[in-house]
Amino acid sequence: MTTESRYPAQTRRQLLTRIGILAGSAGLYQAMTSLGHAMGTDFKGPPHLTGARPGTTVLVLGAGLSGMLAAYELRRAGYSVRILEFQNRAGGRNITLRGGDTLTELGGATQKVGFAPGNYINPGPWRIPYHHQGLLHYCREFRIALEPFVQLNHNAWLHSSSTFGGKPVRYRELASDINGYTGELLAKAIDQHKLDDLVMPEEREHVLSTVRGWAGLSDKGTWASGARSSLRRGYDKMPSAGIDGAPTYSTPFPRAEVMKSGLWQWMAFPEALDMQTTMFQPVGGMDNIGKGFASRVHDLITLGCAVTSIHQDDHGVKVTYKDTAHGNAIREAAADYCVCTIPLPVLSQLDIQVSGPLKSAIAAVPYASSVKLAFEFKRRFWEEDDQIYGGISFTDQPISQISYPGHGALSKGPAVLLGGYMFGPAAYDFAGMTPAQRVEEGLRQGSVFHPKQYRSEFLNGIGVAWSRMPWTLGCCSMWSEQARKAHYKTLVSMDNRIVLAGEHASYVGCWQEGAILSSLAAATQLHKRATGAA
Amino acid sequence: MTTESRYPAQTRRQLLTRIGILAGSAGLYQAMTSLGHAMGTDFKGPPHLTGARPGTTVLVLGAGLSGMLAAYELRRAGYSVRILEFQNRAGGRNITLRGGDTLTELGGATQKVGFAPGNYINPGPWRIPYHHQGLLHYCREFRIALEPFVQLNHNAWLHSSSTFGGKPVRYRELASDINGYTGELLAKAIDQHKLDDLVMPEEREHVLSTVRGWAGLSDKGTWASGARSSLRRGYDKMPSAGIDGAPTYSTPFPRAEVMKSGLWQWMAFPEALDMQTTMFQPVGGMDNIGKGFASRVHDLITLGCAVTSIHQDDHGVKVTYKDTAHGNAIREAAADYCVCTIPLPVLSQLDIQVSGPLKSAIAAVPYASSVKLAFEFKRRFWEEDDQIYGGISFTDQPISQISYPGHGALSKGPAVLLGGYMFGPAAYDFAGMTPAQRVEEGLRQGSVFHPKQYRSEFLNGIGVAWSRMPWTLGCCSMWSEQARKAHYKTLVSMDNRIVLAGEHASYVGCWQEGAILSSLAAATQLHKRATGAA
Repeated sequence: MTTESRYPAQTRRQLLTRIGILAGSAGLYQAMTSLGHAMGTDFKGPPHLTGARPGTTVLVLGAGLSGMLAAYELRRAGYSVRILEFQNRAGGRNITLRGGDTLTELGGATQKVGFAPGNYINPGPWRIPYHHQGLLHYCREFRIALEPFVQLNHNAWLHSSSTFGGKPVRYRELASDINGYTGELLAKAIDQHKLDDLVMPEEREHVLSTVRGWAGLSDKGTWASGARSSLRRGYDKMPSAGIDGAPTYSTPFPRAEVMKSGLWQWMAFPEALDMQTTMFQPVGGMDNIGKGFASRVHDLITLGCAVTSIHQDDHGVKVTYKDTAHGNAIREAAADYCVCTIPLPVLSQLDIQVSGPLKSAIAAVPYASSVKLAFEFKRRFWEEDDQIYGGISFTDQPISQISYPGHGALSKGPAVLLGGYMFGPAAYDFAGMTPAQRVEEGLRQGSVFHPKQYRSEFLNGIGVAWSRMPWTLGCCSMWSEQARKAHYKTLVSMDNRIVLAGEHASYVGCWQEGAILSSLAAATQLHKRATGAA
Repeated sequence: MTTESRYPAQTRRQLLTRIGILAGSAGLYQAMTSLGHAMGTDFKGPPHLTGARPGTTVLVLGAGLSGMLAAYELRRAGYSVRILEFQNRAGGRNITLRGGDTLTELGGATQKVGFAPGNYINPGPWRIPYHHQGLLHYCREFRIALEPFVQLNHNAWLHSSSTFGGKPVRYRELASDINGYTGELLAKAIDQHKLDDLVMPEEREHVLSTVRGWAGLSDKGTWASGARSSLRRGYDKMPSAGIDGAPTYSTPFPRAEVMKSGLWQWMAFPEALDMQTTMFQPVGGMDNIGKGFASRVHDLITLGCAVTSIHQDDHGVKVTYKDTAHGNAIREAAADYCVCTIPLPVLSQLDIQVSGPLKSAIAAVPYASSVKLAFEFKRRFWEEDDQIYGGISFTDQPISQISYPGHGALSKGPAVLLGGYMFGPAAYDFAGMTPAQRVEEGLRQGSVFHPKQYRSEFLNGIGVAWSRMPWTLGCCSMWSEQARKAHYKTLVSMDNRIVLAGEHASYVGCWQEGAILSSLAAATQLHKRATGAA
């Protein structure tokens, strides 16, 4: 993509979001309509479907969030609903792993989670932006307790293998230095009247005071060791008490190193809409959302159903599946309509009777591979030794990041962190390793942040490769701009009696919100069709 | 102060911190010693005092955090300790107000808190930075549960009365536009070779790519409506699902308005060391810290002791006090040594037998006035209507800010927010009002953020004026640079048998950490003196 060419490696979310935006974006400008209210959420509230024809039946394929929500809203509308689920649990990619859980992947490798009681990792979705109002609405309705997810941590590490001697620096140091040096350069340019063609005289003082203030420059207009810079980047000796309580200042890193590092991308990361504060996580594990949804539709779900074909005609939909809980018996289920939330890499391999264009659309969307590593350590050395409470340390190594738990700060005993989050090529590399190799490689790379403790405090670890999960065969949809133009509207449009739902059927790909919004859009379409309104 | 002259109104913390830094700062430069480890905390662990002479007695004046901690560590060292406290509760300025609590101020006005069960406000300290390692150490030791305090919220409001038509804008919009426009200007200056004297050829591409990337500029190097800018500042229509799921872009505010607004200061605010993430608050109220400390020394505390004189000679210390719990009976307490944590505005009015220089020091430190408003509303309209979960909306009006609760997100029923936090002149204005007038004025000003709901959802409110609290007569110490030079070392040095402690005896003024560190410094000094080591 040409838009990427000038930039260092983008973060996966930036990449995904940009892909999503660019798709179909030509000419999508709109005048700013009202100050300060420019962004709402596109969630306008639950659909309030009413007036279903009595006895109309709906078959939902998949008991992830989108399937369960469609079932919940359609039953409320008056439909007779049934859900077939492949796994022996509901929730789909909304999942939390705890001690004693096992995970079997394609190829047969099985991992048993060794975490201490109370510890967990969310290998799928793990954070919720404030603007995901659809998901937040149902969390509130289903009384699922949320707590802040610590995304940005000024005291976490940033690591560039090729700069600063290969040693990590603190986010606050790097971010302050970038703001300071760029502000210093711009202030000098304006001060020396080099930008008089760009900054009119009446605006000059305003730009100068903004740049100097925001960058935290000294009275001389410089970014140098002193009170203002230490107030941002930290001190060599912190202000304290007693006779020797006075602080000593720190010294900014050399500008050339700061600019060469490429670490600006990790400053930009938490400024992207999807990563801005306030973010949330469910108290106790992400699967409390899945459990909350399941508590409303558990009576509709049949587990262990491996769908093999989806047929339809003018009278209804017929689904064939293997009942894996009962000796792989072949069974059939029929209904008037079907909401299909099966992930596209699986769905594209099934015998599904839909139009040619929809078949093409189903085959056109590649799925991202992603791998998450989770390590349990004897103690929270990142807190006790490094004063890092939650947030993320980033590196340009394949593991990309270490994310520290934002919950349970200061507690004693073993704790679990996210030891790596691979996307793209690195994810394929890690998925090709055995689970033990993934853990070993994650420990090796992560040691750059915590060289003294990463091995000595290690207890156990797992590596979850989403491309090897048999029920999804990938992490989430990766729409290209071209695919979006050619196939999106077809993919999300009802095909006679069948409508697709899931994060792949949205512009909010790879987020639970995409599953929620697409589920509501699908249920609404189905209802219009079934009541003759469409 | 000359350092302030060029800048718009500073935030109180910036001001305080700067004052603290500048004091005694001449020549305090120190070479950067090691990459990425430039800042530690000055807390090295508890003092581990041992070997007190049996029977040595210590009288601690004040059962705030500094007094209770000094008592805790000195008893552990082997001293016989007693604490006299003025109020009928321990904790000092570490306080939480809940429904049913009453607050009587100088002048006699009494407020009764009307909050619903479970709701509270912390009118004194209300947040804890990650680098306050002394306080965090004791929170951990005393098993006081903490949770993240949401400081920065990209979706909160910023308000400048004189720009944007007097309407608030979202933090994400303003911050993105400042980064975008400053980056655009600098990139153009470099691109057009206007800065070739400042940026050497070998650094040029690195600076350009950093500036373009961090600012989020378009491929053309501009900050304009499009994919990159909407990714930061928000969309007019958010990415969604279904057939009409494509987003539409927002348009940046006019550069002249952005630069004129002065709102950069609220971007700088959370970048200051004391406000950086991760911040904490105790679960359930700040006074859980005071209660945690009190649980370790409750047997040492006598409440209701209004100290009137503190005398000392070569043999010991003698304190006279009114026993307000028993008809104001005049009583005496004696000990070998004394740790005095009485706030300076009160202490300066007492008959205290210390050296002339120490008396001068005690009189030399003015205290800040500050006022906090707390309002209870019927529901969390800031969440439900404005998608603001925790964090702070800032204004250039006297109330300065509204801080939303970071805990209990999505919950139903009444909730309490901080409706104003005045410091400096505005605090004196508000302290001069009746409590009812403070509430009314806070509601009037705060309506700029929530015009539809602020009156209609209001239930009750309080206004706490720290200058009117009889036991402290101010919020906290405001060392001037001159006073720090002349008096700090005297103030923190043991005067025969008496040593002062409290946030005022530190470079971490107005923070609980100052009380903790000064307490440990005072206890250590006392121990050295008492064991003949100093």
